[in-house]
Amino acid sequence: MAYDQEQLLEKELSTIDESIEYADRAQVMWVNIDGLHNSDILEKLGRYFNIHSLTLEDIMNTGHRPKTEDFESYLYLVFKMLVFDQDKMHIVTEQVSLILGPHFLLSFQEKEGDLFNSVRERIRKAKGRIRKLDSDYLAYALVDAVVDHYYLVLEEVGTIIESLEEKILADPDPETLHSIHHLKREMIFFRKQVWPLRETLNALSKDQSNLIHETTHIFLRDVYDHTIQAVETIDSFRDILSGLQDLYLSTISNKMNEVMKVLTIIATIFIPLTFIAGIYGMNFKFMPELELKWAYPALWAVLIVIFCLMLVWFKRKRWL
Amino acid sequence: MAYDQEQLLEKELSTIDESIEYADRAQVMWVNIDGLHNSDILEKLGRYFNIHSLTLEDIMNTGHRPKTEDFESYLYLVFKMLVFDQDKMHIVTEQVSLILGPHFLLSFQEKEGDLFNSVRERIRKAKGRIRKLDSDYLAYALVDAVVDHYYLVLEEVGTIIESLEEKILADPDPETLHSIHHLKREMIFFRKQVWPLRETLNALSKDQSNLIHETTHIFLRDVYDHTIQAVETIDSFRDILSGLQDLYLSTISNKMNEVMKVLTIIATIFIPLTFIAGIYGMNFKFMPELELKWAYPALWAVLIVIFCLMLVWFKRKRWL
Amino acid sequence: MAYDQEQLLEKELSTIDESIEYADRAQVMWVNIDGLHNSDILEKLGRYFNIHSLTLEDIMNTGHRPKTEDFESYLYLVFKMLVFDQDKMHIVTEQVSLILGPHFLLSFQEKEGDLFNSVRERIRKAKGRIRKLDSDYLAYALVDAVVDHYYLVLEEVGTIIESLEEKILADPDPETLHSIHHLKREMIFFRKQVWPLRETLNALSKDQSNLIHETTHIFLRDVYDHTIQAVETIDSFRDILSGLQDLYLSTISNKMNEVMKVLTIIATIFIPLTFIAGIYGMNFKFMPELELKWAYPALWAVLIVIFCLMLVWFKRKRWL
Amino acid sequence: MAYDQEQLLEKELSTIDESIEYADRAQVMWVNIDGLHNSDILEKLGRYFNIHSLTLEDIMNTGHRPKTEDFESYLYLVFKMLVFDQDKMHIVTEQVSLILGPHFLLSFQEKEGDLFNSVRERIRKAKGRIRKLDSDYLAYALVDAVVDHYYLVLEEVGTIIESLEEKILADPDPETLHSIHHLKREMIFFRKQVWPLRETLNALSKDQSNLIHETTHIFLRDVYDHTIQAVETIDSFRDILSGLQDLYLSTISNKMNEVMKVLTIIATIFIPLTFIAGIYGMNFKFMPELELKWAYPALWAVLIVIFCLMLVWFKRKRWL
Amino acid sequence: MAYDQEQLLEKELSTIDESIEYADRAQVMWVNIDGLHNSDILEKLGRYFNIHSLTLEDIMNTGHRPKTEDFESYLYLVFKMLVFDQDKMHIVTEQVSLILGPHFLLSFQEKEGDLFNSVRERIRKAKGRIRKLDSDYLAYALVDAVVDHYYLVLEEVGTIIESLEEKILADPDPETLHSIHHLKREMIFFRKQVWPLRETLNALSKDQSNLIHETTHIFLRDVYDHTIQAVETIDSFRDILSGLQDLYLSTISNKMNEVMKVLTIIATIFIPLTFIAGIYGMNFKFMPELELKWAYPALWAVLIVIFCLMLVWFKRKRWL
Repeated sequence: MAYDQEQLLEKELSTIDESIEYADRAQVMWVNIDGLHNSDILEKLGRYFNIHSLTLEDIMNTGHRPKTEDFESYLYLVFKMLVFDQDKMHIVTEQVSLILGPHFLLSFQEKEGDLFNSVRERIRKAKGRIRKLDSDYLAYALVDAVVDHYYLVLEEVGTIIESLEEKILADPDPETLHSIHHLKREMIFFRKQVWPLRETLNALSKDQSNLIHETTHIFLRDVYDHTIQAVETIDSFRDILSGLQDLYLSTISNKMNEVMKVLTIIATIFIPLTFIAGIYGMNFKFMPELELKWAYPALWAVLIVIFCLMLVWFKRKRWL
Repeated sequence: MAYDQEQLLEKELSTIDESIEYADRAQVMWVNIDGLHNSDILEKLGRYFNIHSLTLEDIMNTGHRPKTEDFESYLYLVFKMLVFDQDKMHIVTEQVSLILGPHFLLSFQEKEGDLFNSVRERIRKAKGRIRKLDSDYLAYALVDAVVDHYYLVLEEVGTIIESLEEKILADPDPETLHSIHHLKREMIFFRKQVWPLRETLNALSKDQSNLIHETTHIFLRDVYDHTIQAVETIDSFRDILSGLQDLYLSTISNKMNEVMKVLTIIATIFIPLTFIAGIYGMNFKFMPELELKWAYPALWAVLIVIFCLMLVWFKRKRWL
Repeated sequence: MAYDQEQLLEKELSTIDESIEYADRAQVMWVNIDGLHNSDILEKLGRYFNIHSLTLEDIMNTGHRPKTEDFESYLYLVFKMLVFDQDKMHIVTEQVSLILGPHFLLSFQEKEGDLFNSVRERIRKAKGRIRKLDSDYLAYALVDAVVDHYYLVLEEVGTIIESLEEKILADPDPETLHSIHHLKREMIFFRKQVWPLRETLNALSKDQSNLIHETTHIFLRDVYDHTIQAVETIDSFRDILSGLQDLYLSTISNKMNEVMKVLTIIATIFIPLTFIAGIYGMNFKFMPELELKWAYPALWAVLIVIFCLMLVWFKRKRWL
Repeated sequence: MAYDQEQLLEKELSTIDESIEYADRAQVMWVNIDGLHNSDILEKLGRYFNIHSLTLEDIMNTGHRPKTEDFESYLYLVFKMLVFDQDKMHIVTEQVSLILGPHFLLSFQEKEGDLFNSVRERIRKAKGRIRKLDSDYLAYALVDAVVDHYYLVLEEVGTIIESLEEKILADPDPETLHSIHHLKREMIFFRKQVWPLRETLNALSKDQSNLIHETTHIFLRDVYDHTIQAVETIDSFRDILSGLQDLYLSTISNKMNEVMKVLTIIATIFIPLTFIAGIYGMNFKFMPELELKWAYPALWAVLIVIFCLMLVWFKRKRWL
Repeated sequence: MAYDQEQLLEKELSTIDESIEYADRAQVMWVNIDGLHNSDILEKLGRYFNIHSLTLEDIMNTGHRPKTEDFESYLYLVFKMLVFDQDKMHIVTEQVSLILGPHFLLSFQEKEGDLFNSVRERIRKAKGRIRKLDSDYLAYALVDAVVDHYYLVLEEVGTIIESLEEKILADPDPETLHSIHHLKREMIFFRKQVWPLRETLNALSKDQSNLIHETTHIFLRDVYDHTIQAVETIDSFRDILSGLQDLYLSTISNKMNEVMKVLTIIATIFIPLTFIAGIYGMNFKFMPELELKWAYPALWAVLIVIFCLMLVWFKRKRWL
């Protein structure tokens, strides 16, 4: 866990009481809690920072959609961190809750993650504005880090989509179709996570509560723009995936058409020829043709003429 | 039927008059009526609690869409309780009407149900806030219980969808298609029940009438969030079901393509070979080839060469 | 035609003048005109009740979409009565125009209909509120009767849809497809009639003109709710019909797949066997196999082995 | 070109100066200009009537979407006149610009047309309100004439759609499909022309500028209603055309299914029979069956039994 | 880089300091910077013109969606320039940033382009309003030049679509399908660039900041109209492309149907005939027909009759 102020204090605490003891000394305090299994810590924090019991329940329950709630004395913000698992082509979510109070910020993650490391680094090195501004800017920095990560996920998805497209054009197989179907589901899921965050950030960037300073509004508008762009990219990915599915189906149709043509050409040429051969294989006693010397070569000539006529006909129909 | 107050009274009443007699003594009164066949009770209640005749008609008629109506002296709220029948994969609805007045709450169910038992339990054990707050909180608790049940239904549907997906990928049959079609219809139906509830709760949570206390608004906003999430889940289920249907169709297309290929390969190889065999089955008197000693093994050689060329050609076309 | 007031007068009038003469004596007057061919009557009424010429034109022209217009001294309301013709599966429309003035209501129907009989009955028997309230309540009652009839139409359509679904699952034929297509068109048409009525009623129920009393607003909100429900039902019917069409197409696909499999199985088994038979039907002089005694039974053995291998292969591919 | 006032003056002018000279004498003046090739006239008019240069450019440029612009001293209104070319099934557009000033109206058409003749007639014969009201009513009359013509176009399209539907049900060919596709494109185009006019008229009918009198607002609301109806009709036409395309595809699917069945029935019956005939065409020395006297009729019996069994099997599968 | 004022100064500067030195002397100054690789220049400009660091970052980062931001002392506007690469059928984007301050305009392009040459020309020749008005008009002129270029792109796309349509109707191949798919993706991309510009221009044209003069609002409304039209054209292109894809699929279906018919006709005619020939090729000792003199011609007669009956049957089924 980390504190940041004009002077910088940073400590990993095992008990929550220590954090409380530091609370008064710092100008801006950031407590980051990994793992939500320990409800004791939450309760202690809740009592110290005066947090509504409903908020604490919300933090524990990881099935929430992104939202913000203004409890006068603090702002509660919950949203999703998304990581793309390349092997399983699966998006993994983790819920992040922020409690933004005057000069303090509590952040809750489900698992230990390294997404906030870049922010920690900036605090340590006093890089950029972050050390000069209040806890609301810190909250913005955390949200921004998460939203920036969305783009990484989208980029990875984009690469997969492109490789799928190439595969469909080159050599489509049912596996490709399953991948498209799977990605589409993931995009539906992704959108469900990002869309409400968009609304939430919009609300925040217009918020009139005095927890968020005027200067931070510009930055929030910036993240808001980023979420809009993310949603639009997801939507166009879905459109493109639908297009790929159509393309796959048409390719299958084309292939089937080609297969049918081969079958039809072969069958249409040889079935009549076989019939003629069958005729002269009959054992009738009185078949005058059979006695003629030139009958056999004549038949070959007939067969070859039929064969050629068929080819010409197929050429005309553009089947060849 | 149940009363709740600082002190707790709870009785199952057979006549409605008794309930009326208790009405004045309690701080908060909850009358729960199972079954709507007895219009007498309704009328008596209506007279006692001063309820508009249109409201009473609405309670009796079970075909309503969720809505709320403010009649100054009381709030009328109607919505649907949904239960998923696993065997028939069918969603069963039951209409619930609430009449929220100052310090009393009347609830009407079509059938005896156990959905409200959790609320009853909380009242009996004085667990949580429920005993300390007014009838509007009780109304919230009932709506919350119903909306929470929606999630159970959605979870069951989600499990079925997943098993359907596995089945399509493994071994699709028309039965799967009928199930998808059926679930889609159920989702259309589900959405039709939940969507208007969403609007209704939104209206309630912004309601300025003095029947709903300021503190309850936070809770109503919470259920409102839940209904939004439910609607979004339904929508993504519908999207996924459409995707499954497409997947099914493409799988069928793929199979057909495979079947066609087998047919074409077999026919394309053997029809020409059979033709050649047919030629030498002819009974012409003068066929010089027939007299040659090495003609038969030579023919076999020709047939085998044709066969192999065909195989190479199919390999190139990636049909094998 | 009918008048209603504290005391009740009811007369069928052949000339419009008589109606005018009654106008002053009654508290609420309802003139119902069947058939719009007689423009004289309209003009007379127009002059007497002081109606804008544009309104009269609108009444005569039956191609209007539902709308309401406030002309200060009266309200003009036009909407569609819908009847479902079971035999032709066709929705028949009839335009109804209402002119609501202070204490009078003029209603215009294209043809004589019995939809308003229930309202007439209620007036005659002084049932419910209708005799105690003003002409705006009467207008509501008429609209309500029409909207209630929409539900009847929807129920009939619902029954047909269900029978179509059963037919598709059991034995789909092109006729079923034409029915689905036809019903879809009818639903597009139905929606086009009901949707604007919804808007119109919404506007009316918030209308501030003094032609509509405060008490009637609740009732209008009620019909408004009904039209919303009707529109939603139409929309879900359209969704279901689209689903049925997809189901039909997939069923056809399934059938084709099955047909293809039969063809492929038969052809794949017998074409190679026929080829072998063809080989030994050749007339080469030197074919050592033909001289062997056990060759014929051996060949049969080979044929049966090939046959069985094929069957095993098809079983593995799940084509059998 | 035409002037209208209490007294009526009407003249076809070759130079624009004459029109200017009449301008002061009339109460309402309407100048209709056919053809936009002569930019001199436009500039002169522009100078006389004090028209913004941007407006003049807009009038010359025929690629505008319908819109209205309020330039304080005048209102600029641009929209499309549509004519349906029956032979090519093509909608032809022509841009119409109106400049509505106090007591004057300038109208600009691309080509000489006869759509405004009905309005001219009404002015000449002093029919209806038109001679009594100001230039804003004249503008309404012109817009109304154009919108009324949209209905004619829609009716023609409706007739074509119906004939297409009949053709699909009776005997679909690729030509029908091309027609559907073509009409769909035309409807997309049509909608693109009408939709913005709708918005424009809505804005106009609520306009507070003193160029449009209160009395004209009712009339504008009326045309606005008509455009809404036109847009809805276009939308339902598009829905119906999509439905027709689906119907066409299903019909093709049905036909293919039927073709496949015929092929399968013939092949499935005769391929095994041919195999049996092939067996007894073999030239093995020792085939005991060949020597038996009753073998040939027995074989025929076997073939007929197989044939009949096949038929029974197809009947059961409902392929016959 | 260019300055414009009553008197005109125009210079290509290599260092940014020179531009600053000119800044005070001109009434309106336009600095156009090609290429964003040199962050020094940006920082110097930023310091001189007092530009927020976030804006400078935004200018450097080329992945932004079009937006405008009001920083009191200046307006920041970012949007996309689009060029259509005919050969690859690909839309290439370039980000353009404008900083509009009182009497100065900074424009940043990614690459050197000639799109702004028309504006430069107008400034040099003092054509139109451009020299008389302030920097906001110059900003409008630049945006207008970019939006006008959108139309060029759309026209090129339109031509390609038309050639695709002709190709599908004449001779569809999979290549056509890939082109359609590709264009659809490009349109999704195009829309994503233009849509937010529309919103941005709408906001600007209603902007109350004193950086934009009242007179410029009319011009901005004009470009806004153009972007709406562009978006609508893109949407109808997407609709048309979807229609083309459907058309392609139906054409493939039609072709397959035709192929199937040929196969079925040939197979259905010759398979039974071959069977009959096979029968009389059998070597049974006792086949009475074989001994008859007229048997062979009689068989031919039978075969020809069967052949003709088949043809008649196909004619009836409309397969021929």
